[in-house]
Amino acid sequence: MDIKTYLTKKKDLVDKALEKLVPPAESFPTSVHEAMRYSLFAGGKRVRPVLAIASAEALGAKTADLLPVAGTLELVHTYSLIHDDLPAMDDDDFRRGRPTCHKAYGEAIAILAGDGLLNMAFEVLSDPRRLKSVPANRLIAIIKEISTASGVFGMVGGQVVDIESEGREIDFPTLEYIHTHKTGALIRASVRVGALYAKAGKRQFTALTRYGELVGLAFQIADDILDLTGKQEELGKDVGSDLKKGKKTFPSFYGIEESRKRAVEVVDHAVSALKDFDRKADPLRELAKYIVNRVN
Amino acid sequence: MDIKTYLTKKKDLVDKALEKLVPPAESFPTSVHEAMRYSLFAGGKRVRPVLAIASAEALGAKTADLLPVAGTLELVHTYSLIHDDLPAMDDDDFRRGRPTCHKAYGEAIAILAGDGLLNMAFEVLSDPRRLKSVPANRLIAIIKEISTASGVFGMVGGQVVDIESEGREIDFPTLEYIHTHKTGALIRASVRVGALYAKAGKRQFTALTRYGELVGLAFQIADDILDLTGKQEELGKDVGSDLKKGKKTFPSFYGIEESRKRAVEVVDHAVSALKDFDRKADPLRELAKYIVNRVN
Repeated sequence: MDIKTYLTKKKDLVDKALEKLVPPAESFPTSVHEAMRYSLFAGGKRVRPVLAIASAEALGAKTADLLPVAGTLELVHTYSLIHDDLPAMDDDDFRRGRPTCHKAYGEAIAILAGDGLLNMAFEVLSDPRRLKSVPANRLIAIIKEISTASGVFGMVGGQVVDIESEGREIDFPTLEYIHTHKTGALIRASVRVGALYAKAGKRQFTALTRYGELVGLAFQIADDILDLTGKQEELGKDVGSDLKKGKKTFPSFYGIEESRKRAVEVVDHAVSALKDFDRKADPLRELAKYIVNRVN
Repeated sequence: MDIKTYLTKKKDLVDKALEKLVPPAESFPTSVHEAMRYSLFAGGKRVRPVLAIASAEALGAKTADLLPVAGTLELVHTYSLIHDDLPAMDDDDFRRGRPTCHKAYGEAIAILAGDGLLNMAFEVLSDPRRLKSVPANRLIAIIKEISTASGVFGMVGGQVVDIESEGREIDFPTLEYIHTHKTGALIRASVRVGALYAKAGKRQFTALTRYGELVGLAFQIADDILDLTGKQEELGKDVGSDLKKGKKTFPSFYGIEESRKRAVEVVDHAVSALKDFDRKADPLRELAKYIVNRVN
């Protein structure tokens, strides 16, 4: 299979679903709706929804009603980016090659656009008109998964420690905490949401969870390497921005070469976690490999 | 019945439930957990949870498992207060007689404490260990109710228009939009959450919705009057703060006396909406009256 074609195809489906999930830009009050759309349609790769879809497909599930469910992962991801970029937080001016939400719409609207997207995720997940085929108890499990990954024991916790670590010497366990919470939690949740949607058995769920944790880790190592070696036009932000902010990363502990090696190992483990799955799990396998190929 | 005793009793129950809903202050990372608790336990009157409880009681429901459900309304309310107080928003230094969350913990932690509380509401509502007796489809309806009231067509939308109206001449429909969304939406949702929990019939649900809308309106008029006539130690903030900020209020359109009259009329209508309910709805009736008695 060609993973790039797969990614493009699924990204298009996700984008179409997202278009229907959020209200039109002209909805009242327009500023916040425009701001939500500005950040949501800034050209993200839709990694999290695609992971959820590939995970459900690995279990043989049809994906029609999965699209809105998967789309909510992107709403939550975008909310976290908007809030993380704020002046009081990471104070970033550019994201995906464009001014960040607060640079374009002001801080107040940016905070509220983030809040709006987070609430919208749960509005969608509790809307029976959108999700007819998904039984209520399965939706509850999915809401539990996403809210926990997004909250104080997930992304919020990771962002807190990240901010409090800025400019300080931190040890490797602290870096791991930041990674597993700030990025890892929602990636793991994405894979698990697909599994919950597809009614995974207990052993399948455990295997997919392991896969999700390892892919989240590989993703973060790759991101840290790209921040040092990537091209500005690919990154959509300045090269070396972690370094400038005094942020510790994987390469600052292990160097670039060792980090590359670690990423490859982690992806091998992720693929091994899927050993009991048949060819329907190939997109998941190829997705994991694709992450490290970007940095090799 | 004595409404003050009722309020104190229910407030104590809600506070005990909230104590169990949020993680201990020493949870890692401590700053955000302390900040969440700082704002959550700042001495609120728990109006929204009490309305949910009284609404469920009006329909004869037992309230054991309603307490965590009702508690999530306070989590959402507190999240909105923390974000509204931020420098980029209303820029308030005091709330309930204490420094606002960002004054005590800094802006970054305040934003994240708000995010943490909002996510926590949905973590609780999707936790079957906490809510054994509530069927999944009823929880989904409750999540829909709360996320919609909290989101872009509820509180977020109201706050957007409020901010964009500051220092401008606005017309009365705009003031009404701000009121019904910024304050009214969650009060209405509180009454409806109690009704959903208690499995209200269609006509009961419509009546309680009407009651909730009117009580929300009365609450806002009373709040506007108190901002002009209240005592600082009761308000926990400066008297006349709306006026200082150039915010339009009910009294700025109708004057204090006419506003008082309107508040009484609105409460009369709220009580009339409950005409088909028996004595179990007395707490709802007395609650509505209590709101205007505070300003008369």
